[in-house]
Amino acid sequence: MLGNFSYCNPTKLYFGEDSLHYLDTELPKYGQNVVLIYGGGSIKKSGLYDEVVKILQDNGKNVAEIAGVMPNPTVAKLYEGVEIARNHHADFLLAVGGGSVCDYAKAVSVSVHCQEDPWEKYYLRFEEPACETLPVGCVLTLAGTGSEMNAGAVITNPDTKQKIGHVFADEKIMPKFAILNPKYTLSLPHYQMVAGIYDIFNHICEQYFSGEDDNTSDYISEGLMRSVIHSSRIANKNPQDYEARSNIMWAATWALNTLVSRGKSTDWMVHMIGQSVGAYTNATHGMTLSAVSLPYYRHILPYGLQKFQRFAVNVWDVDPTGKDGRQVAEEGLAAMEGWMRELGLVMNISELGATPDMAEGIASGTIVMSGGYKVLNHEEIVEIVKECFA
Amino acid sequence: MLGNFSYCNPTKLYFGEDSLHYLDTELPKYGQNVVLIYGGGSIKKSGLYDEVVKILQDNGKNVAEIAGVMPNPTVAKLYEGVEIARNHHADFLLAVGGGSVCDYAKAVSVSVHCQEDPWEKYYLRFEEPACETLPVGCVLTLAGTGSEMNAGAVITNPDTKQKIGHVFADEKIMPKFAILNPKYTLSLPHYQMVAGIYDIFNHICEQYFSGEDDNTSDYISEGLMRSVIHSSRIANKNPQDYEARSNIMWAATWALNTLVSRGKSTDWMVHMIGQSVGAYTNATHGMTLSAVSLPYYRHILPYGLQKFQRFAVNVWDVDPTGKDGRQVAEEGLAAMEGWMRELGLVMNISELGATPDMAEGIASGTIVMSGGYKVLNHEEIVEIVKECFA
Repeated sequence: MLGNFSYCNPTKLYFGEDSLHYLDTELPKYGQNVVLIYGGGSIKKSGLYDEVVKILQDNGKNVAEIAGVMPNPTVAKLYEGVEIARNHHADFLLAVGGGSVCDYAKAVSVSVHCQEDPWEKYYLRFEEPACETLPVGCVLTLAGTGSEMNAGAVITNPDTKQKIGHVFADEKIMPKFAILNPKYTLSLPHYQMVAGIYDIFNHICEQYFSGEDDNTSDYISEGLMRSVIHSSRIANKNPQDYEARSNIMWAATWALNTLVSRGKSTDWMVHMIGQSVGAYTNATHGMTLSAVSLPYYRHILPYGLQKFQRFAVNVWDVDPTGKDGRQVAEEGLAAMEGWMRELGLVMNISELGATPDMAEGIASGTIVMSGGYKVLNHEEIVEIVKECFA
Repeated sequence: MLGNFSYCNPTKLYFGEDSLHYLDTELPKYGQNVVLIYGGGSIKKSGLYDEVVKILQDNGKNVAEIAGVMPNPTVAKLYEGVEIARNHHADFLLAVGGGSVCDYAKAVSVSVHCQEDPWEKYYLRFEEPACETLPVGCVLTLAGTGSEMNAGAVITNPDTKQKIGHVFADEKIMPKFAILNPKYTLSLPHYQMVAGIYDIFNHICEQYFSGEDDNTSDYISEGLMRSVIHSSRIANKNPQDYEARSNIMWAATWALNTLVSRGKSTDWMVHMIGQSVGAYTNATHGMTLSAVSLPYYRHILPYGLQKFQRFAVNVWDVDPTGKDGRQVAEEGLAAMEGWMRELGLVMNISELGATPDMAEGIASGTIVMSGGYKVLNHEEIVEIVKECFA
């Protein structure tokens, strides 16, 4: 049953190899004081930093910088950036980087004019902003998180080992615009590329493996999954294939901009376990997801058998003739495993630096969400986490 | 190859059986003088008219009406509505009806403050508005056209037998919001329901049958087509199935809100021929498309063989084992024909009131677009139109 919902994604997207110049179209719409936000400096090596700074100068902007946004942006880094944006009397935040940089910019956006502690308000109490928020624009350099067209922002507190995502309710928190140039993703190391690809695929899975109906959203999800599988195989062999990387980038946006979850329940337990692993290991987000996915899905398979069968047939072209439902469903996950190994994804959390003594902590740190085929109890999470070491 | 493009669809959608009350959220955002636009009075029979008028009154709006918008809105009706909106000093246009009513509201929106003749400016010269435009909201009662989330508006000139659609470039012409309540579609006669379903399916086809790459958009299209086929079979047997009608309504929006055409070329020749048939017969839009589709697709099949094969396998589950490409492709169209006959669609233009003496006129009135697998010459269009009588 397609339930009641609303949908609004006003982010303007500029896609393609010439898309950077649309900054000249967008920047004049916002105020003078811009904070440029970026990560570890790869945009300086690639020359993108210089290009963006020149466009900002040509548009007469007064620019401050928040540099060094890390892959799992910390609450300390958030506080630091909020100070910079406040002192600069920021009118606009321009994120240049991957999903973490976009997420971080949104977290700064809702925090600059917030009187309370943003970690407590947004990440522990999950409240919505009551203050003015700053407009955000993105120049995306990594396909994966979908952060360029949603209102989500993940922040990590290393002291308490919490990695928490808040998807804000108001579409005004979504980026005003995003520039998606697949060329910027071509220089990414293979490890980061495939981690991003799995992040995309898992976003779709989390929204797909839930509900028992024939929702239009699930059909769109199957199309997106087939596209990601197809293009990832090309990109895995030749990361410089612009067409494949383009399709991956475009699928990433649609995998997590709310479309495929409309009118249905969603799961998100792979992200919850993966984020807990991430808080313990600081591992690459997509790899925490790949390392915990199969133990999780094999655990819930009996509770969502029909959907796993459908997944096998519609996404992996498993021939169901003469097989029982369980066998079809398991062949689907086996096909998925084969594809994951083909891409060279990390398939266990030991490789990510997790040690068996962390198992209880990872399980306890996992936020339990409902919406999937089975609401997990603590013992089940411990069991799944233990299987993730294998 | 996923080409360069931009994407922005800011329309806010409220979907579900309780969605009408969101008018109370949206109406206060706009000015006092509202023009309520509707069709032939079915909303009076259903009680929806009374509900909407009450909400407008409760919101203190000053309301004028444009009633009697016909299925293929005429240029004379456009002039009439523009006068009403001008005299009312309209701030906001509220369309309550199907795609024609939404289209018409957008045409009024761009014409009220236009100094030139809107038919000549927008439909003969395809220019963009230079004047202020009025915000439009929609309460949709029929699933099909996708008009609720795009910037298109089709207007017909019966004198010159021209039915022309203009998709405006600026997203501000898109409705500000649309209320999608599947319940409103339940009272529709079977003929109108299946015409709407075929309109949806054909919108996807027009964007799918073009290009030879592995574009993400085509994968999304396949998912949408599968969803429409699945839900249409349920709705055809039981038009009161809310779930099926919901999924059809939701697929309709995504079939024509620009998503599935991003980064690729499109065809639209079925619409061009169908619209010319419509200008001669005033037949239901979806039925003009169903009546001309198969002769057209069978004509272009050899030029786009690979895509027709892919369509057969990915949309219709044709087993390609041991068959040559042509055979697979033809089996796909045969499966599509079977489904169309199952729904009871009109399969030839004679049934729509076209007579053989109109063939030349229909062909001459067909706007020839490029983008498909073959740019048609006049003789080919005449040939296709003649086959449509069979």
